[in-house]
Amino acid sequence: MSSIENFQQQISTALANRNFPDSPANLYDPIRYILSLGGKRIRPLLTLLAADLFGMKVLDTAIPAALSIEYFHNFSLIHDDIMDNAPLRRGKATVHEKWNPSVAILSGDALLVQAYMELAKCPPAHVAALLTVFNQVAKDVCDGQQLDMDYETRTDVTLTDYIEMIRLKTSVLLGGALQLGAILANASLEQQQLIYEFGVDIGIAFQLQDDILDVYGDPKTFGKQVGGDIISNKKTYLFLSLQNLAVAEDAVLLQELVKGDLSSHPQKVQQVMDLYGRYAIKERAEVEKQHYTKAAFASLEKINIPKEQKQALEAIANQLLIREI
Amino acid sequence: MSSIENFQQQISTALANRNFPDSPANLYDPIRYILSLGGKRIRPLLTLLAADLFGMKVLDTAIPAALSIEYFHNFSLIHDDIMDNAPLRRGKATVHEKWNPSVAILSGDALLVQAYMELAKCPPAHVAALLTVFNQVAKDVCDGQQLDMDYETRTDVTLTDYIEMIRLKTSVLLGGALQLGAILANASLEQQQLIYEFGVDIGIAFQLQDDILDVYGDPKTFGKQVGGDIISNKKTYLFLSLQNLAVAEDAVLLQELVKGDLSSHPQKVQQVMDLYGRYAIKERAEVEKQHYTKAAFASLEKINIPKEQKQALEAIANQLLIREI
Repeated sequence: MSSIENFQQQISTALANRNFPDSPANLYDPIRYILSLGGKRIRPLLTLLAADLFGMKVLDTAIPAALSIEYFHNFSLIHDDIMDNAPLRRGKATVHEKWNPSVAILSGDALLVQAYMELAKCPPAHVAALLTVFNQVAKDVCDGQQLDMDYETRTDVTLTDYIEMIRLKTSVLLGGALQLGAILANASLEQQQLIYEFGVDIGIAFQLQDDILDVYGDPKTFGKQVGGDIISNKKTYLFLSLQNLAVAEDAVLLQELVKGDLSSHPQKVQQVMDLYGRYAIKERAEVEKQHYTKAAFASLEKINIPKEQKQALEAIANQLLIREI
Repeated sequence: MSSIENFQQQISTALANRNFPDSPANLYDPIRYILSLGGKRIRPLLTLLAADLFGMKVLDTAIPAALSIEYFHNFSLIHDDIMDNAPLRRGKATVHEKWNPSVAILSGDALLVQAYMELAKCPPAHVAALLTVFNQVAKDVCDGQQLDMDYETRTDVTLTDYIEMIRLKTSVLLGGALQLGAILANASLEQQQLIYEFGVDIGIAFQLQDDILDVYGDPKTFGKQVGGDIISNKKTYLFLSLQNLAVAEDAVLLQELVKGDLSSHPQKVQQVMDLYGRYAIKERAEVEKQHYTKAAFASLEKINIPKEQKQALEAIANQLLIREI
């Protein structure tokens, strides 16, 4: 069994063995439910891999920090789904749909508190440092979610704004997951910063890839509706790039496609894709993705540890950032 | 200036000097707003008084813990107001009314994170212990809010259930506020437990008093609509006591009054008050309030510190638990 599989097994076992209270059922059943929907558990895995990278031997000690990250992630899913009015999460009803918004608000709150309870189980000497990093990540994720909501109605969103939003909303959590592991393994602040930046840049590259796959992905493997971002006028990296570059009648057409509904533009997805082709938008997004991928691996390389011990983290990064699209 | 006024001044100054980020405005404006609505700041005062009681000299060091409690309290107000569909808080529009529910959910989350950021500013040697107590209080408050919502539709709520609900929803936060101060002042676990129990019992007595005042309070000073609990069929200590005791036609009348609307029972408040009178419900509630008041002062007395140093805490408790109704 590889170290990755071994760690994944430890995370599954730990999650299965955490017993939330039976009562109040309306508070803890939704928590059991969201955690049962699965997911790849990438974030807690990153915590264990970072602790391992920096030489921590007893990895059981890193499990609470790993779970704190997974709980935080699931708390943010419950609350984001209310705000986004999303009916489905991983193919199943969202918490506010299965119960109601009040239950979703409060069980999300309770799950965030559970995340902090896991942090409090960490070795006391490390708790202050872990808490500081965790708090900053949590604040950033809230900021990012607010920016994402603000962008829905703003018309002046730049590519820089967009990268900053995805950095906060989704990427810092990967960086933070890694940094918690590094703290537990007594890594220096400089090494902590490098592994954090590795995670953040992998996260940005992954989000850019997600924007690309939403348009150009294989419907059989992508998992979401291909073209969904175009249909919903989502301000992705691709859309904002096109908006920046489109001239004359292309800009007018894009405005029409955004304002109109699907009945007036049944070919909307194809028409936007044609515009993307005209301005080489896919290639631009791929260049940006490669920029962040390279930055990530440069940070990993700078970490003061023999290259062969970085293989598991490299493998995870390569798995997240599939090279073929 | 008394120590109480001195501490209140410190809290005001600290709150005024905490600068939340300007951006995203939709995230931090609601936080500035809820904190600007005032309130008596009793909870952070308790933290400072407990730190002082146990001999902490540099009380500035206790300010972050005090603010963490005040922030937590305001986070819970923002989210509870969404769940309760409340239009007003301290006479002003609630956050979800002034903005919208999404803003209220996310700014509440961000304020909870800010509470934990204050905890992380405390002396590192104490952070693990502070975090453990804070987390348990936060979990209890969530549990209590869920029980309160569950009770709205449950018909089998006992007086014991009710006391447990108010203990969790409102009282543990007073106990926790005091315990944080005790931890910072290096009080023993036993002394921490006593000051915690003092706070919890004061909190329960205060809530029972609130139930009594809602029916028998002076409209000029009570601050809420007298009779409001009766009109909205709230399952208070008084209502549940009556439900327990009412026999034959009184039980039937109570059922009718609960089921009917105000147009069919314009004298509902008076009719319920007549039933309360028949079963000496006010007196029963006062006995229960006195039971918790005595328990609170018994815990305070057991604390291993000269009585004259407990005067400020006694004064606050006496101020909360006004003797005249």
